Amino acid sequence: MFRQLEEEKVFKDPVHQSIYVQDATIWKLINTPEFQRLRRIRQLGTSYLTFHGAEHSRFSHSLGVYEITRKIISQFERNGYSDWPQQEKLVSLCAALLHDVGHGPFSHSIEQVFDTDHEDWTCEVILGNTGVNRVLREVSADFPDKVASVIRKTYDKPIVISLVSSQMDADRMDYLLRDAYFTGVHYGTFDLERILRVLRPYKDKIVVKESGMHAVEDYLMSRYQMYWQIYFHPVTRSSEIVLRQIFRRARELYAEGYEFGFMLPPLRQLLQGTLSVEGYLQLDEALVQTAFGQWMEEKDELLSDFCRRFLNRVLYKYIPLEQRDETWLNGLRDEWKSIGLHPDYHMEVDTPIDLPYDVYKPGEDSPEKPPILLLDDREGLTEIASKSEIIQSITGLHRGKYFLYYPEDLVRPHASKLSRLTRERLSL
Amino acid sequence: MFRQLEEEKVFKDPVHQSIYVQDATIWKLINTPEFQRLRRIRQLGTSYLTFHGAEHSRFSHSLGVYEITRKIISQFERNGYSDWPQQEKLVSLCAALLHDVGHGPFSHSIEQVFDTDHEDWTCEVILGNTGVNRVLREVSADFPDKVASVIRKTYDKPIVISLVSSQMDADRMDYLLRDAYFTGVHYGTFDLERILRVLRPYKDKIVVKESGMHAVEDYLMSRYQMYWQIYFHPVTRSSEIVLRQIFRRARELYAEGYEFGFMLPPLRQLLQGTLSVEGYLQLDEALVQTAFGQWMEEKDELLSDFCRRFLNRVLYKYIPLEQRDETWLNGLRDEWKSIGLHPDYHMEVDTPIDLPYDVYKPGEDSPEKPPILLLDDREGLTEIASKSEIIQSITGLHRGKYFLYYPEDLVRPHASKLSRLTRERLSL
Amino acid sequence: MFRQLEEEKVFKDPVHQSIYVQDATIWKLINTPEFQRLRRIRQLGTSYLTFHGAEHSRFSHSLGVYEITRKIISQFERNGYSDWPQQEKLVSLCAALLHDVGHGPFSHSIEQVFDTDHEDWTCEVILGNTGVNRVLREVSADFPDKVASVIRKTYDKPIVISLVSSQMDADRMDYLLRDAYFTGVHYGTFDLERILRVLRPYKDKIVVKESGMHAVEDYLMSRYQMYWQIYFHPVTRSSEIVLRQIFRRARELYAEGYEFGFMLPPLRQLLQGTLSVEGYLQLDEALVQTAFGQWMEEKDELLSDFCRRFLNRVLYKYIPLEQRDETWLNGLRDEWKSIGLHPDYHMEVDTPIDLPYDVYKPGEDSPEKPPILLLDDREGLTEIASKSEIIQSITGLHRGKYFLYYPEDLVRPHASKLSRLTRERLSL
Amino acid sequence: MFRQLEEEKVFKDPVHQSIYVQDATIWKLINTPEFQRLRRIRQLGTSYLTFHGAEHSRFSHSLGVYEITRKIISQFERNGYSDWPQQEKLVSLCAALLHDVGHGPFSHSIEQVFDTDHEDWTCEVILGNTGVNRVLREVSADFPDKVASVIRKTYDKPIVISLVSSQMDADRMDYLLRDAYFTGVHYGTFDLERILRVLRPYKDKIVVKESGMHAVEDYLMSRYQMYWQIYFHPVTRSSEIVLRQIFRRARELYAEGYEFGFMLPPLRQLLQGTLSVEGYLQLDEALVQTAFGQWMEEKDELLSDFCRRFLNRVLYKYIPLEQRDETWLNGLRDEWKSIGLHPDYHMEVDTPIDLPYDVYKPGEDSPEKPPILLLDDREGLTEIASKSEIIQSITGLHRGKYFLYYPEDLVRPHASKLSRLTRERLSL
Repeated sequence: MFRQLEEEKVFKDPVHQSIYVQDATIWKLINTPEFQRLRRIRQLGTSYLTFHGAEHSRFSHSLGVYEITRKIISQFERNGYSDWPQQEKLVSLCAALLHDVGHGPFSHSIEQVFDTDHEDWTCEVILGNTGVNRVLREVSADFPDKVASVIRKTYDKPIVISLVSSQMDADRMDYLLRDAYFTGVHYGTFDLERILRVLRPYKDKIVVKESGMHAVEDYLMSRYQMYWQIYFHPVTRSSEIVLRQIFRRARELYAEGYEFGFMLPPLRQLLQGTLSVEGYLQLDEALVQTAFGQWMEEKDELLSDFCRRFLNRVLYKYIPLEQRDETWLNGLRDEWKSIGLHPDYHMEVDTPIDLPYDVYKPGEDSPEKPPILLLDDREGLTEIASKSEIIQSITGLHRGKYFLYYPEDLVRPHASKLSRLTRERLSL
Repeated sequence: MFRQLEEEKVFKDPVHQSIYVQDATIWKLINTPEFQRLRRIRQLGTSYLTFHGAEHSRFSHSLGVYEITRKIISQFERNGYSDWPQQEKLVSLCAALLHDVGHGPFSHSIEQVFDTDHEDWTCEVILGNTGVNRVLREVSADFPDKVASVIRKTYDKPIVISLVSSQMDADRMDYLLRDAYFTGVHYGTFDLERILRVLRPYKDKIVVKESGMHAVEDYLMSRYQMYWQIYFHPVTRSSEIVLRQIFRRARELYAEGYEFGFMLPPLRQLLQGTLSVEGYLQLDEALVQTAFGQWMEEKDELLSDFCRRFLNRVLYKYIPLEQRDETWLNGLRDEWKSIGLHPDYHMEVDTPIDLPYDVYKPGEDSPEKPPILLLDDREGLTEIASKSEIIQSITGLHRGKYFLYYPEDLVRPHASKLSRLTRERLSL
Repeated sequence: MFRQLEEEKVFKDPVHQSIYVQDATIWKLINTPEFQRLRRIRQLGTSYLTFHGAEHSRFSHSLGVYEITRKIISQFERNGYSDWPQQEKLVSLCAALLHDVGHGPFSHSIEQVFDTDHEDWTCEVILGNTGVNRVLREVSADFPDKVASVIRKTYDKPIVISLVSSQMDADRMDYLLRDAYFTGVHYGTFDLERILRVLRPYKDKIVVKESGMHAVEDYLMSRYQMYWQIYFHPVTRSSEIVLRQIFRRARELYAEGYEFGFMLPPLRQLLQGTLSVEGYLQLDEALVQTAFGQWMEEKDELLSDFCRRFLNRVLYKYIPLEQRDETWLNGLRDEWKSIGLHPDYHMEVDTPIDLPYDVYKPGEDSPEKPPILLLDDREGLTEIASKSEIIQSITGLHRGKYFLYYPEDLVRPHASKLSRLTRERLSL
Repeated sequence: MFRQLEEEKVFKDPVHQSIYVQDATIWKLINTPEFQRLRRIRQLGTSYLTFHGAEHSRFSHSLGVYEITRKIISQFERNGYSDWPQQEKLVSLCAALLHDVGHGPFSHSIEQVFDTDHEDWTCEVILGNTGVNRVLREVSADFPDKVASVIRKTYDKPIVISLVSSQMDADRMDYLLRDAYFTGVHYGTFDLERILRVLRPYKDKIVVKESGMHAVEDYLMSRYQMYWQIYFHPVTRSSEIVLRQIFRRARELYAEGYEFGFMLPPLRQLLQGTLSVEGYLQLDEALVQTAFGQWMEEKDELLSDFCRRFLNRVLYKYIPLEQRDETWLNGLRDEWKSIGLHPDYHMEVDTPIDLPYDVYKPGEDSPEKPPILLLDDREGLTEIASKSEIIQSITGLHRGKYFLYYPEDLVRPHASKLSRLTRERLSL
């Protein structure tokens, strides 16, 4: 099943130094149009507007996930652990590589507004009429289904799912290291080599040797820091809010029969909810940003303003709210109207809690996110939080402040018309 | 002239850790649409197709050039060197920051095909009806002219030009470090802190204390290695060739009156040679790549094939030529025609020599590239190559191999129709 | 008071890149015999027997503490904070530099066995007949007293004490970074630059801007990890136990009038409890290790065996104890005797808790270890643990396992004579 | 021959992250007293007096050389190169590990003064009555001889010698990286991973794939920079000169029958030229420095002064000489005498050329230092300098300035008695 390349291919990678490809199937997958397209999708969505180094793509992340998976399996093979089913190597590597192949541009915002799901798209790319599917079918007729079932977490070898998708999987390990590298913070750095050394296949799970507990603490603390310092950064949230207003406004206008000065087929499909795989694959960040650039000229003032804000980085301002003060917020909607603003577009209360990111929650023993288990010679398996107070302490922490986001530049000229409380809270 | 911000602004940067903005003019320049647009222009053009980490933008590089310039001036001020004219700080910082503001998408290819020049565009952005110009005019009516004349190297304080543009200027120092960081190679690393410490203002030049000679050797060797390992990498050259074919073919079709299925105003201006500043500023990489995506559907087969190659990374293959064998190459054009290929598009002989990069050439004492001078208490100034055999050795080295690039996938099926010599040379 | 050197001196340092000396007093202090002697005292005592890279000296650490202090003060001066008393710069820098000048070889072990205290010795070096004292007196007659009182935490400017000695002082910041660098682990790395940026002088304390809370969390987690991974490593503990047996045995023999085959005056003074400053300053690690080498030839078998163990790294083995099982341990002493071993020397129960290191304990508001305070515009000062659950979680954590240490090589040959429980526990 | 350890042993290393020991013989060798003794010998001799971070030992370097050798062999095995004789693995690893086991304290100085050779001592440790010999003999009776013959470059498998000792061997690769890491300069960094990837066994040599040429250039430039910036640093040279005066004076005094206040058997053996292996192994840096400390009290003023200078870092000053001006230097000897100084001890003219370090000299095709060969499919083997002008340029470069070293503190008080030329040259 594993067809050795004549000569190993090596990618230079800033995070892992080198990424080694030894199998022909992997090499062909990387060269499909669908995988190459990930070069035009940023890994961190709008974070580059907060951390200018965060311009790296899902292409480089996907190679990194593949490489970490390869290293884990290679460690298992080197040590000859009998609980690792050796014939599962290729399906594991393919699932690792293709894990994010269904990501679109600024996925989080698009998924929120249009209620799509990148995991579904990943499976469609794997199973549909695509280059990826053709390469996988060369392995065997049912191979695409196998890979897709790993992504969907229904594969009949749970250890493969555990490897590709868990609280300490190759995906998370790569993105923490990579996002730290490209933003330039050091919070995300942990001792990858040490963690790779303490992983063990055990029955149908990947677990951690007990002596590796401090290394896992370190990894989880890195993750905790990255979430609060990078992923939930309020400036990034602001840029996502502006981005969502664009999509929401465009969808609304489309529904109303508005004539867009600029339109392209995949965008139209998106707005009318009829995206095909082909259309989806054309929807990269280049296309979306080009549309925004053209829409800056639209006669709908809301749409053109939001596009201008996004491209020129004129974001919404934010203030922390001690708690959701619904009375004041409801009143604020009326105040907004009174000065000519749209409360549905020009204010948003946000808390990081609804982001698709998560901090480690040990109780959560769902098939989706198996917890991290420590393996001890005497006691067998234990969930890590029960042994580590550090890890307990970051569970359910920081339930997230509320922030109010709004376009200050539009509000300030009308400050005198606002209530005293509002002026105070917004420092006007 | 220097208007201190109330609170210093800090950008997190992977290369310099932090970038400090203390002056209101700099802060406002960063927030202009023209400068923000640099986020949509990659620093290294097509290099990301060879080194996937090289996805960083000219935005981050421009901030880096500003920061290095700020550090050099700060060192001069701290030591109170009388040869440094203190009132030139703001013009120097602005010129450093805006140095690349006229860069377009994939500048090298576009400049070659359309004969434009990013330095001219930089001056147009500084002097034209732009946000940048408005911010600069707030300083004084003639301030935009001053900044532009630094870019054009005609400013009447040569020391400012020497600071912003020389063989060891902030521009080169930042891009070597930054490109090394993002590609993940270490060749470009040199001891920036040490170099900053040995720079001295001396009469109307920036020179190097003699004890810094080895640090300069190290810097020049880094530069040499980066050129040959990164900038002149044949895979990158291949992607630039494919890119040029797109632009050449599109211009040719446009001239012939071809009806494009997809067109946007700035593209049309580009093809007909009538680009305005406004049009140019819309021409970012997002727009160009979107056009390529749409042109994959054009009925002109050459154009659609080149676009597909570029986006899906199906590049031309290359073989090294010991020397330009004109007889064989001329014959090859005919062989190409005989198998239905276009010699003007389907083959290209390339040598890195014509790239806008350069290795250090000490003799070249043009106002464009002042050489690096060592300052010695006894001897005064000496050009560095006369003291360092290392530096002499990398002067004029490696005049560049010739490579032949061609689409192997189109040639191989017709191999049997080609001459024996050709088959041998192309390993068919 | 500050006498600028004609030319700034620069030390190349792996942790801080460069260490800058601008004041003549600092330069002279570095060149005293007492300070140079720190080159012959390892920063981490016996840790090099566990982490071979940990061979760095207190000399380099002391320079690092000085440099961090210099940077903090420089930030205060640059921002013109009025709560920082500018005239305290030199006394602060001297106290930072000389903080550890009284450390002897393997201080922890020697202090435990001989009940001495390196802080007392530091003051004696500062106040006694030494090169250090002479340099300090050049500043003013009472300057040595001032510096010593900072070390003793009785100086009448509490902010200076807060700078030099607190839960987040320059000492701890340097040793975490330095020990991480030289051992090669990355746990100790935190964002020094960011922490330096959020420190503020506030009344008579150094506090942290509230937005710096996550950076402090990161620093404290680094510290927590370093303590458990490096400082309390059981192999290092084992080597300290062996070392203590040497000193204990030598003292016992000396008291009994034993004739040593090798003796030197400072050693004799140590063993008889009459160490003078002059003697103490001769007691470096070279001398102590040389004595051990010679004592390998002593006729007292215990002493020669312990010396051999220490120099050849034949350490005691250890097993974790679930709890102090006094009944078994008492019985073990008898079992030891029955096989010819000395229970006072050949077994030791150890828990890290008694080490002079500490994890952060927020409640502990002693003048010795002022807690870390956050400064908020609205609320004023708050102890950090009350805001951070992370920090709460590492307070009083890990009260430390008990370990039993013993020379397995001496026990194993007699295994059959030991009780079954003992054989089981020791895996014999 | 290879006896797998039950569990792989891992050393944490700052340069290679981890050092893996899988074979029982290697593990036992590391635990011999002779190898542990390398912890008390600094890798860089007196360089720590110039670069305070350079406190690392030959113990850590020896582990590093072993690890690089292990990685090279592992690459050969993984790729199944038939030119690599697989049964030579253990002898190669042992030779790599033990390569420096015969180094004494401050070897360069001791070898110069007493005309000993650390390579001879290495062979004596391997072949003599030592722990190392006993471990090697467990493999087979002739195994110590085999290992020693690799060290002596007479082993009958030249490829093993080429691996352990050549212009680009594991020894050099480790020390460049390690010395750069611990001094904190970055000159010594090169892409180790890439170099390991381009090495090939070819007939009886280790050669380099041609595509690795730039990587080798980079390695040789690092080496060149390290030599001139670190190894030949004039302050380090000064400290070695002071050190040599101690040894020269002590030997002279011993020959004259002087009664030393402090003496130990191995020192006496050294001074009378009768060092046994046992004595040599006791001669570590601790002992030597302890002797210097005691000799500070000797009544011979020269000896006590040199010892004080070395321990307190009161080194000789140096001035560059344009050329060896013998007339002036001869006169200077007389001037020295006239002011009561000893020309044999108080002045020394030095040029780096006589150091046991070397820059790459391609012509030098001795069995000692085989040149670096490039392997090309068409052309076979070529010496690298013939292809690289960079490498040519660093051949024979920098023949080394002359420096005059002398104790300025002893000269300055008598400046008025010196000739005008001397006063000028010494800036008195």
